Amino acid sequence: MKRALFEEDHEQFRELATEFNAREISGKYAQWEKDHQIPREVWQSAGENGLLGLAVPEEFGGMGIDDYRFRVVLDEEFVRSGHLAVALAFHLHDDLVLPYLLSYGSAELKAKWLPRMVDGSTITSCALTEPGAGSDLRAVRTKAVRDGDDWLISGQKTFIGNAAFGDASLVLARTDGESSRAGAHSFSLFMVERSEGYSNGKPFDKMGLRASDTAELFFDEVRVSATDLVGEVGQGLSYVKAQLPQARLALAVAASAICSASFEQALEHTKNRSTFGQVLTEYQNTRFELADLKTEAHVTQSFVDRAVLAFNEGELNASDAAEVKLWASESAKKLSDKALQLHGGYGYIMEYPIAQSFTASRLLTIFGGTSEIMRETIGRAL
Amino acid sequence: MKRALFEEDHEQFRELATEFNAREISGKYAQWEKDHQIPREVWQSAGENGLLGLAVPEEFGGMGIDDYRFRVVLDEEFVRSGHLAVALAFHLHDDLVLPYLLSYGSAELKAKWLPRMVDGSTITSCALTEPGAGSDLRAVRTKAVRDGDDWLISGQKTFIGNAAFGDASLVLARTDGESSRAGAHSFSLFMVERSEGYSNGKPFDKMGLRASDTAELFFDEVRVSATDLVGEVGQGLSYVKAQLPQARLALAVAASAICSASFEQALEHTKNRSTFGQVLTEYQNTRFELADLKTEAHVTQSFVDRAVLAFNEGELNASDAAEVKLWASESAKKLSDKALQLHGGYGYIMEYPIAQSFTASRLLTIFGGTSEIMRETIGRAL
Amino acid sequence: MKRALFEEDHEQFRELATEFNAREISGKYAQWEKDHQIPREVWQSAGENGLLGLAVPEEFGGMGIDDYRFRVVLDEEFVRSGHLAVALAFHLHDDLVLPYLLSYGSAELKAKWLPRMVDGSTITSCALTEPGAGSDLRAVRTKAVRDGDDWLISGQKTFIGNAAFGDASLVLARTDGESSRAGAHSFSLFMVERSEGYSNGKPFDKMGLRASDTAELFFDEVRVSATDLVGEVGQGLSYVKAQLPQARLALAVAASAICSASFEQALEHTKNRSTFGQVLTEYQNTRFELADLKTEAHVTQSFVDRAVLAFNEGELNASDAAEVKLWASESAKKLSDKALQLHGGYGYIMEYPIAQSFTASRLLTIFGGTSEIMRETIGRAL
Amino acid sequence: MKRALFEEDHEQFRELATEFNAREISGKYAQWEKDHQIPREVWQSAGENGLLGLAVPEEFGGMGIDDYRFRVVLDEEFVRSGHLAVALAFHLHDDLVLPYLLSYGSAELKAKWLPRMVDGSTITSCALTEPGAGSDLRAVRTKAVRDGDDWLISGQKTFIGNAAFGDASLVLARTDGESSRAGAHSFSLFMVERSEGYSNGKPFDKMGLRASDTAELFFDEVRVSATDLVGEVGQGLSYVKAQLPQARLALAVAASAICSASFEQALEHTKNRSTFGQVLTEYQNTRFELADLKTEAHVTQSFVDRAVLAFNEGELNASDAAEVKLWASESAKKLSDKALQLHGGYGYIMEYPIAQSFTASRLLTIFGGTSEIMRETIGRAL
Ligand SMILES: Cc1cc2nc3c(=O)[nH]c(=O)nc-3n(C[C@H](O)[C@H](O)[C@H](O)COP(=O)(O)OP(=O)(O)OC[C@H]3O[C@@H](n4cnc5c(N)ncnc54)[C@H](O)[C@@H]3O)c2cc1C
Ligand SMILES: Cc1cc2nc3c(=O)[nH]c(=O)nc-3n(C[C@H](O)[C@H](O)[C@H](O)COP(=O)(O)OP(=O)(O)OC[C@H]3O[C@@H](n4cnc5c(N)ncnc54)[C@H](O)[C@@H]3O)c2cc1C
Ligand SMILES: Cc1cc2nc3c(=O)[nH]c(=O)nc-3n(C[C@H](O)[C@H](O)[C@H](O)COP(=O)(O)OP(=O)(O)OC[C@H]3O[C@@H](n4cnc5c(N)ncnc54)[C@H](O)[C@@H]3O)c2cc1C
Ligand SMILES: Cc1cc2nc3c(=O)[nH]c(=O)nc-3n(C[C@H](O)[C@H](O)[C@H](O)COP(=O)(O)OP(=O)(O)OC[C@H]3O[C@@H](n4cnc5c(N)ncnc54)[C@H](O)[C@@H]3O)c2cc1C
Repeated sequence: MKRALFEEDHEQFRELATEFNAREISGKYAQWEKDHQIPREVWQSAGENGLLGLAVPEEFGGMGIDDYRFRVVLDEEFVRSGHLAVALAFHLHDDLVLPYLLSYGSAELKAKWLPRMVDGSTITSCALTEPGAGSDLRAVRTKAVRDGDDWLISGQKTFIGNAAFGDASLVLARTDGESSRAGAHSFSLFMVERSEGYSNGKPFDKMGLRASDTAELFFDEVRVSATDLVGEVGQGLSYVKAQLPQARLALAVAASAICSASFEQALEHTKNRSTFGQVLTEYQNTRFELADLKTEAHVTQSFVDRAVLAFNEGELNASDAAEVKLWASESAKKLSDKALQLHGGYGYIMEYPIAQSFTASRLLTIFGGTSEIMRETIGRAL
Repeated sequence: MKRALFEEDHEQFRELATEFNAREISGKYAQWEKDHQIPREVWQSAGENGLLGLAVPEEFGGMGIDDYRFRVVLDEEFVRSGHLAVALAFHLHDDLVLPYLLSYGSAELKAKWLPRMVDGSTITSCALTEPGAGSDLRAVRTKAVRDGDDWLISGQKTFIGNAAFGDASLVLARTDGESSRAGAHSFSLFMVERSEGYSNGKPFDKMGLRASDTAELFFDEVRVSATDLVGEVGQGLSYVKAQLPQARLALAVAASAICSASFEQALEHTKNRSTFGQVLTEYQNTRFELADLKTEAHVTQSFVDRAVLAFNEGELNASDAAEVKLWASESAKKLSDKALQLHGGYGYIMEYPIAQSFTASRLLTIFGGTSEIMRETIGRAL
Repeated sequence: MKRALFEEDHEQFRELATEFNAREISGKYAQWEKDHQIPREVWQSAGENGLLGLAVPEEFGGMGIDDYRFRVVLDEEFVRSGHLAVALAFHLHDDLVLPYLLSYGSAELKAKWLPRMVDGSTITSCALTEPGAGSDLRAVRTKAVRDGDDWLISGQKTFIGNAAFGDASLVLARTDGESSRAGAHSFSLFMVERSEGYSNGKPFDKMGLRASDTAELFFDEVRVSATDLVGEVGQGLSYVKAQLPQARLALAVAASAICSASFEQALEHTKNRSTFGQVLTEYQNTRFELADLKTEAHVTQSFVDRAVLAFNEGELNASDAAEVKLWASESAKKLSDKALQLHGGYGYIMEYPIAQSFTASRLLTIFGGTSEIMRETIGRAL
Repeated sequence: MKRALFEEDHEQFRELATEFNAREISGKYAQWEKDHQIPREVWQSAGENGLLGLAVPEEFGGMGIDDYRFRVVLDEEFVRSGHLAVALAFHLHDDLVLPYLLSYGSAELKAKWLPRMVDGSTITSCALTEPGAGSDLRAVRTKAVRDGDDWLISGQKTFIGNAAFGDASLVLARTDGESSRAGAHSFSLFMVERSEGYSNGKPFDKMGLRASDTAELFFDEVRVSATDLVGEVGQGLSYVKAQLPQARLALAVAASAICSASFEQALEHTKNRSTFGQVLTEYQNTRFELADLKTEAHVTQSFVDRAVLAFNEGELNASDAAEVKLWASESAKKLSDKALQLHGGYGYIMEYPIAQSFTASRLLTIFGGTSEIMRETIGRAL
């Protein structure tokens, strides 16, 4: 069964992505893992190559691509080569921060931020989570208090990707004066630039995706102008909710790419290794494992591709997106684990893409809404 | 995400199927289970309603429908209501016997058999398996020996659906004089009518699908005319191989329908039952199980629907078909099991559709090629 | 690793059990399945052979065996040969009804019931479940109303084993006048003999264990003497709770026996069947499946054996018993399923022990407390 | 059910181990992870505290403990606190190297090596694996060639724990002149000290167990005296085979400790964290997951404890050991994964013990014989 998702444009874009990946990342990635950092030049080069801010309209320097399939192509290229932290870093920028600005930002806000995001000169993070607020964002305690026309932001965020080396962050903060228990309208979103009072912790020592600089962010009365309020006061949570489908679809796309790459890598490895005088693929167990890998990779791809098309047509609702994210992330976890096993000891060494995929997958059922939250979302919609 | 498989024609056909199912089967099925028999009148009524021999060309009394989606509709209706043995019986007739006649039968053979299959006056079975030959059809020992223009068929078949009450059987037999070990060209296919020397055992006491009359067939020099040779001598195995994709897709379709029905039934049951003062859907575990059921039912449907379209376009190869059959049948086994659990003790009583689905599913990973043979097929094609 | 559970006495008892099983059951069981009945003579013969009422003290005609390992031996023999409905029928009599009489019954009650239970002349059932009360016994609506020294019992029970052909039933009924919502002390237990107002439905058509006569029981003002009240008024639920460990251990024992038998049967079948010129055990997948079956059967046996010894020493608490029942029943479901698969089509035919094991296993995660209720029990005790 | 493995001696030893662990490791471990090294002083302190070379007879400075339960205690302490690389490092020394010396070493060899291993002044590694020889040790190509009374060893080993900072290595090498295909008697074992021609690669960047210095070893005509030949020439492979049960039991013990620790840590975390106004343990899904964790941890412990006792009595054969290793390592992988999920994002940060357990578990189904090799071992013994 041929895959029916892509058209010629996408394949051309893939060439660009493949070339970028080979030129700018391969061979350097292992060092970035040690540094917990993707160098700034890579962002700039990505910007120059048109790989950032895909959906940004031409007037703000972008290409105005609202066909999500181009993002799919990009993710697939990074995943295939085991450069998963790059996939994540760009994902945070393009799928988590950008859509808020595009959908709710004022003209000024767009003019201020979009061009810098497109050219890669500004690296952004999306700061929702706090030590006491992960699945449950109503527990967010970071606050924004009016000071004249400005806002002063104070609080602590944690587990924020692109935080240690990023330039600005989309921050969810309480704006209701914290009178009492937070309600649906207690929160707002702000674009906060690194400036006085804005600091970060050291990158966390994570299981995988080490080149991604996940860190704490601290805001101590950071001054933010009225322009940087995203949309309306009090709409923060409803915006977050509205943007969940894209965020979750994006993770499903990466997860599905991990499934396919896992199969490919396991096939490659087992075709080229022998034990007891037999190529690994000559063992029935190996063949059966590969057959299961191939089948579930196809299954997952069918489902995610269908969701990508639905999203393009504006028809992926919250429950659908939860299904796709739940399935694809659990599937990536399972398939990368099986594929790793077929690598024997090599699968345990981080320079192998399968080790990157496996450790990245372990985040996917947690980040962007845990599998439990996905089940809750689907279950409540029944 | 809306399902995109069906068009208006199919929905009209569904109305017909629903009505037939309600009128002719509901309320009677439990008795057929005891009798291990679907009454002959049901076949005839199905024939009158245009539900048999869908693909038969108009010249032979059929409607010449080569869009497989109509068979999908039919299967879904029978599965939903727990009338799984009817789905199986018609499947054997339409997906296993018919395609051979259509693809390889001579004009005489078609003229002789097709009209009787379309109107339901002749019930057919497909007799490949023998006590010593299931997964491995080269071990078939039933033989056909020429006697003038005719053939004399002798041997024993087992596990044959529609065998005890059927009228004729498509039989795989050795035609190479059994000189030595069977080879690729040792076998041929024949349409064998109930006549002298043709007898059957009592229906097996099966775990599920009890209304289906699965039995042994015995051939003691049964005389068959040259007309009833299907296609060419020596091509039996290659024909079987060529028709596997349809046979397997058909089972995948039924399996996917079981997945969807399992979810629906579990939802229905749990919404309407309480324990400890709470409706079952108020328990988080119930909601999570339902969420998983719904998700995997959608996933499986996406994959199978994609395969149906590929089949319609002549693009479902043997390995693809094995993937689809493997996935959908394993999924049906898993989901019907989970859904049954949510029924508590009721799930164990055969009058509940979920008990029918569960026991039918247990056959699906065995019949039509076991899951192991599917994995072997996919694995060898890598 | 040798199994360390049994001593010589147990092995002698095993010989008795094996012989009984071969003489009285083998060859006849298939007919009982059709009749949904185990003939009364079998009960009597079991009684004569000392296989019923093991724990009954000598003064009441029993052998006063309080070493649970003898029951383990018996279960293992019935399970091994696929006579699972016999295991169930005796289990209900010995593990569900008997312990209540022994622990809480007055001297008169014991004198009246125990001898008849030991010699097999009275077949008992345990009637807790009702259409609206399964997991949640506080929803029981059957009521017992005082009438002089007697009680009048009215209500409906469902899913009751040994109900259609049994002679008496241990019944849980409300005795608080049903003033308002039932509380912990609203229920009592009675031994109710078949008499005026006592009737039953037809045996349910069940997925498996067909020889067991599971049916509804109806009580229409059935008169019961004061003697037949078990223990004290209002203690019904606390008695049920106190006896759960034995009931659950008993099911775990049967489940573990299913695990072992499944492995043995799969090994036997695959060693004696060939496809494509190879014995099934020559295929790596078969060997791997058998290895997993053997390993998990051992694992489960270790755990259950440990629980049997703990029970003998009075140290198996409710949470422990829930763990053992949960594990063993889920394991039996999984292993009998895997073993069935290795039987190919034969596994689907009820005359094969593996088909009996598989269908019986499907009840084990529901009956005697569902897996969900087990998890709840363990989870609440954390 | 109380655990029945330990006696008072073991509990006293546990106090020692706990104290050592707290004093010497806690608070420092994170740094060792960065250094890929456990400092030499820790080995020495362990030696002083009697934690190394437990089985070494008193004449060679040890305590002559051949009760394996003391090693169990030690492993449990390291695992519980997430110091898994220490467990591994000591395991290589005590369970992989030592038994060969004790069982096959000459008096001179013992006198030379044992005291240094007991006091921790010599850190040893066990070098079997090569780039082309993992599961299949007959493919080992490192060779030892006689040179007078000495041997000259040349070759390359890979994935060797304690290699980068260790002092000596037990090396499997061909001693048959490599005439033709290696046979059962082509290999011998040597204790090889760091000296001329002995070098190592940089520690691999591993997924987990980072404080363990797994590296390549290179031997370029390293001179080894006749004393350092372990046992007889040509017996290398048969020795390895004979020692497999201990090696595998050791890994099973660590794996079972991971299972228990995972449950404990998940319980601890979920009892102390809230979302949406509820403690995580108030969610039914959390409780059910914890119930499953607890149950399977107990199940695994039962099985492994039974194996420990069998090993103590010299009754753990190769197939038994494979069962125990297979089960416990797969179970550790599963349970640490489930427990990690309950930690949410925190589970992804390496400073959390659960992240250490999860990443260590991923090695356990590969190292010391993959799960596939375990299944093959069990399957062949059927
Ligand atoms: C490497 C990494 C990168 C990240 N990057 C970002 C980022 O860039 N920006 C950002 O804002 N956040 C980021 N996160 C945070 C991430 O989105 C959260 O970790 C995630 O949403 C889960 O929240 P939590 O960790 O607080 O877990 P919790 O909410 O504490 O959940 C703990 C456990 O309880 C379960 N649980 C919670 N509620 C329920 C319920 N109602 N019913 C049943 N179970 C429940 C969860 O499923 C989970 O298993 C990142 C996290 C990691 C680890
Ligand atoms: C209810 C029912 C209805 C049926 N209806 C029909 C019908 O109408 N017409 C018809 O012709 N047949 C029918 N069958 C037969 C069915 O198609 C076969 O049972 C099936 O193909 C498997 O064959 P077998 O039973 O001989 O199993 P075997 O081939 O003996 O297989 C036994 C086990 O070995 C495994 N195995 C076999 N070969 C390999 C290998 N190379 N590697 C690894 N594992 C292997 C199998 O997967 C299976 O697990 C029916 C069967 C049943 C039970
Ligand atoms: C063949 C057979 C024989 C039997 N024999 C006997 C007998 O001899 N005597 C007798 O008294 N009974 C008998 N039973 C009844 C059996 O014990 C009950 O079926 C069982 O206890 C479950 O009750 P239920 O069927 O009412 O399911 P329900 O209680 O309605 O449960 C339905 C589903 O909801 C789940 N559920 C319920 N409560 C919760 C909760 N709080 N949280 C999460 N999930 C929940 C259950 O786990 C289950 O999945 C028998 C049943 C069968 C099928
Ligand atoms: C962190 C780490 C530490 C280690 N420490 C040591 C150490 O201290 N000393 C040491 O000597 N070694 C050590 N090893 C090596 C380890 O024991 C081997 O990795 C392991 O034995 C597997 O060998 P392999 O990696 O060559 O895999 P391979 O043998 O190449 O196996 C690859 C895959 O093929 C499968 N396979 C192989 N043969 C068959 C078959 N016949 N049938 C079916 N499937 C098959 C395997 O199960 C696996 O899935 C270590 C490895 C790691 C990763």
